[in-house]
Amino acid sequence: MLYYVAMQINIPETLDAERVETIKAAERSRAIEIQETGKWPHLWRVVGQYANVSIFDVESNDELHQLLSSLPLFPYMSIQVTPLSRHPAAI
Amino acid sequence: MLYYVAMQINIPETLDAERVETIKAAERSRAIEIQETGKWPHLWRVVGQYANVSIFDVESNDELHQLLSSLPLFPYMSIQVTPLSRHPAAI
Amino acid sequence: MLYYVAMQINIPETLDAERVETIKAAERSRAIEIQETGKWPHLWRVVGQYANVSIFDVESNDELHQLLSSLPLFPYMSIQVTPLSRHPAAI
Amino acid sequence: MLYYVAMQINIPETLDAERVETIKAAERSRAIEIQETGKWPHLWRVVGQYANVSIFDVESNDELHQLLSSLPLFPYMSIQVTPLSRHPAAI
Amino acid sequence: MLYYVAMQINIPETLDAERVETIKAAERSRAIEIQETGKWPHLWRVVGQYANVSIFDVESNDELHQLLSSLPLFPYMSIQVTPLSRHPAAI
Amino acid sequence: MLYYVAMQINIPETLDAERVETIKAAERSRAIEIQETGKWPHLWRVVGQYANVSIFDVESNDELHQLLSSLPLFPYMSIQVTPLSRHPAAI
Amino acid sequence: MLYYVAMQINIPETLDAERVETIKAAERSRAIEIQETGKWPHLWRVVGQYANVSIFDVESNDELHQLLSSLPLFPYMSIQVTPLSRHPAAI
Amino acid sequence: MLYYVAMQINIPETLDAERVETIKAAERSRAIEIQETGKWPHLWRVVGQYANVSIFDVESNDELHQLLSSLPLFPYMSIQVTPLSRHPAAI
Amino acid sequence: MLYYVAMQINIPETLDAERVETIKAAERSRAIEIQETGKWPHLWRVVGQYANVSIFDVESNDELHQLLSSLPLFPYMSIQVTPLSRHPAAI
Amino acid sequence: MLYYVAMQINIPETLDAERVETIKAAERSRAIEIQETGKWPHLWRVVGQYANVSIFDVESNDELHQLLSSLPLFPYMSIQVTPLSRHPAAI
Repeated sequence: MLYYVAMQINIPETLDAERVETIKAAERSRAIEIQETGKWPHLWRVVGQYANVSIFDVESNDELHQLLSSLPLFPYMSIQVTPLSRHPAAI
Repeated sequence: MLYYVAMQINIPETLDAERVETIKAAERSRAIEIQETGKWPHLWRVVGQYANVSIFDVESNDELHQLLSSLPLFPYMSIQVTPLSRHPAAI
Repeated sequence: MLYYVAMQINIPETLDAERVETIKAAERSRAIEIQETGKWPHLWRVVGQYANVSIFDVESNDELHQLLSSLPLFPYMSIQVTPLSRHPAAI
Repeated sequence: MLYYVAMQINIPETLDAERVETIKAAERSRAIEIQETGKWPHLWRVVGQYANVSIFDVESNDELHQLLSSLPLFPYMSIQVTPLSRHPAAI
Repeated sequence: MLYYVAMQINIPETLDAERVETIKAAERSRAIEIQETGKWPHLWRVVGQYANVSIFDVESNDELHQLLSSLPLFPYMSIQVTPLSRHPAAI
Repeated sequence: MLYYVAMQINIPETLDAERVETIKAAERSRAIEIQETGKWPHLWRVVGQYANVSIFDVESNDELHQLLSSLPLFPYMSIQVTPLSRHPAAI
Repeated sequence: MLYYVAMQINIPETLDAERVETIKAAERSRAIEIQETGKWPHLWRVVGQYANVSIFDVESNDELHQLLSSLPLFPYMSIQVTPLSRHPAAI
Repeated sequence: MLYYVAMQINIPETLDAERVETIKAAERSRAIEIQETGKWPHLWRVVGQYANVSIFDVESNDELHQLLSSLPLFPYMSIQVTPLSRHPAAI
Repeated sequence: MLYYVAMQINIPETLDAERVETIKAAERSRAIEIQETGKWPHLWRVVGQYANVSIFDVESNDELHQLLSSLPLFPYMSIQVTPLSRHPAAI
Repeated sequence: MLYYVAMQINIPETLDAERVETIKAAERSRAIEIQETGKWPHLWRVVGQYANVSIFDVESNDELHQLLSSLPLFPYMSIQVTPLSRHPAAI
């Protein structure tokens, strides 16, 4: 079951620089880990923004929320989720 | 080169019903035709809306505009285009 | 699997009055039919608006889109779908 | 009398981490306490957001405001309240 | 129980002029009728707009929706309803 | 001369807690003082928000700005002012 | 007493062309008439739009609404009114 | 003197198809005519939209409004004008 | 050449109180200085807001930017500039 | 291949003043460096704002993102990218 997910990252300036680096490294590891399960088949950078456009393929709404909230950058992201269904003209 | 494209269809009520059906059939044919070239790798329906979420893979901005404006429903669509680039954590 | 669905109805003034009544009656029948399956557990009117707030309980995104697009008023509705998951503090 | 209530939580980064945990624990307790009175019949998490979608069932506007403002996270929430009434097609 | 209600009137140009006059006269009568019950204590015109700002005093959400939807201009109005409660500093 | 005034209060988290209490007490006193002059005939709390909906009755735009800017919370409020006039159907 | 008034004109395409010309001529006459009273001291065109930016100098909110609603294009305008007061640094 | 101008074209469906073609041809001629004067140095199509992004180089605000309002599609365009000045880091 | 300029002031709470007073005094002096040149013919306070509505009369876009960016509060203002031209019905 | 790029700069007040100056100087150098390659043919200041309007001419979406994210002010900018194509009436 597919979902379009748009993530915008907003790290507050007041956050400690070292902690930011630690979180970003953890984010990267976790993102790769989820992708390797096949549940995050597409991940693209939005040109000119600290944001991404993603497609998730999961069993349920609950599973999607568990995956998204497991991301180390989750507290600093604004996330929009759009459920997708099969398009009648898709080949 | 990838682009995220969101298309919202708004067919005016005043349009003749038969003409609408003709345009929709032509749209379907043209959508399949473009997908078969490999330039429109993903096409999904947004749940609850007469709208789609798409990924296009083209050589240039010009090519993308030519493809989109060749769609029979183009005059009745509101389209947002977001250029994508490779994400550093994508596998 | 639950979804919050907000439907706003906008019937164009140019639509024939009799056809409007036919569509509304069909909408009412179809709404009752879906509710009786248990897949549309909550349906409320928004005070002061020709709009509703609904909760759907379905197996998948595809099933939700099929139900929503089967509504006779679907072409005249603006629909927003929000996927829900279990809240950790819900009893 | 039913109300649709959407709560978005925004805890400022500058808040002390320990105090945040204390507030969250108190929030959880108070949320359960209100639910047990039957006045907060539905509480769902919005997928991908630190936000919830709720239905409240109270005697009056005043009672709803008292309940909402009694939540420990109230100062850090953006809340939208929509009054609901019976839908003519609800079964 | 008080509610702040903002009504914006948008009568489509395609509506027959005579019918518009009939509806406006009926709206005026119904508005006076409701005010005389004490349930619509305040009704003001927004300067420069075909819109009003109102306060309603009713027993329930259902009663408010019945009153608003009984207005002859209801199909041509965009209405926003905000529930009010007692302010701690109000005298 | 009447004005609809919507005030939304946003006190920054970085403000000293004691100073906040002092300002709120002063705000309360000043709000009561203005109401007693008859120039602030209505003051209601918006349900679920740290915000109010008010009606002011003053001699001029200048007088309204002097009253609003005399409020101790003025620097922390987002205020919208809408001039009102007599509604032709008001009784 | 001064007000900033922004008027955006939207004449529906379905309106008879001759009637449009009649209304525009009447608008022009009425606009000049009001300006000659001194109550509409400034009237400017917004570059690239069928819109104007105006300053009105009137005795009351009621008078402003009477002037604005007397404009022949009033039914086809979206108008925003902002009350102004003396600026402490104005010379 | 430079201005950034964004033009969005919205031709109503109710407009006669032949008249639309006449207007579009006239628009094209007039656009070329203005470009040849050097006052419209840049004109680009926005990908996926019936819209353009333009730079105008004119003597004054008045001249810009005269040029824009001389376009045959002017009544059907939504235009945003942004005045530009020299950037300190431009070479 | 006239421009409508709307300035909204947002001074961050974290700024030192004394420095704020110094900047405000400098702002006042600079505002008077510019007004005395005749290039800032109108300056009004927006009722209920720390904001102003202004008309500037300058030779060019560059001159307007130089004037606005010379204001001591410039770094703390959100400014919208709208170019104006002569209105055909202005007397 | 051309893109319209709008950059809005928002430097947080909490950032050290000296570091801000260092970043701005680096930004200026990098901006000049990119312009000299011919890939950033136009760079204008938006009048009254700490913002710019730019045209980039690059080989691909990836190249554009690399250029934009190489700007020292990138973490403090809100950037909107609009892909452009040739306009049929451009000379």
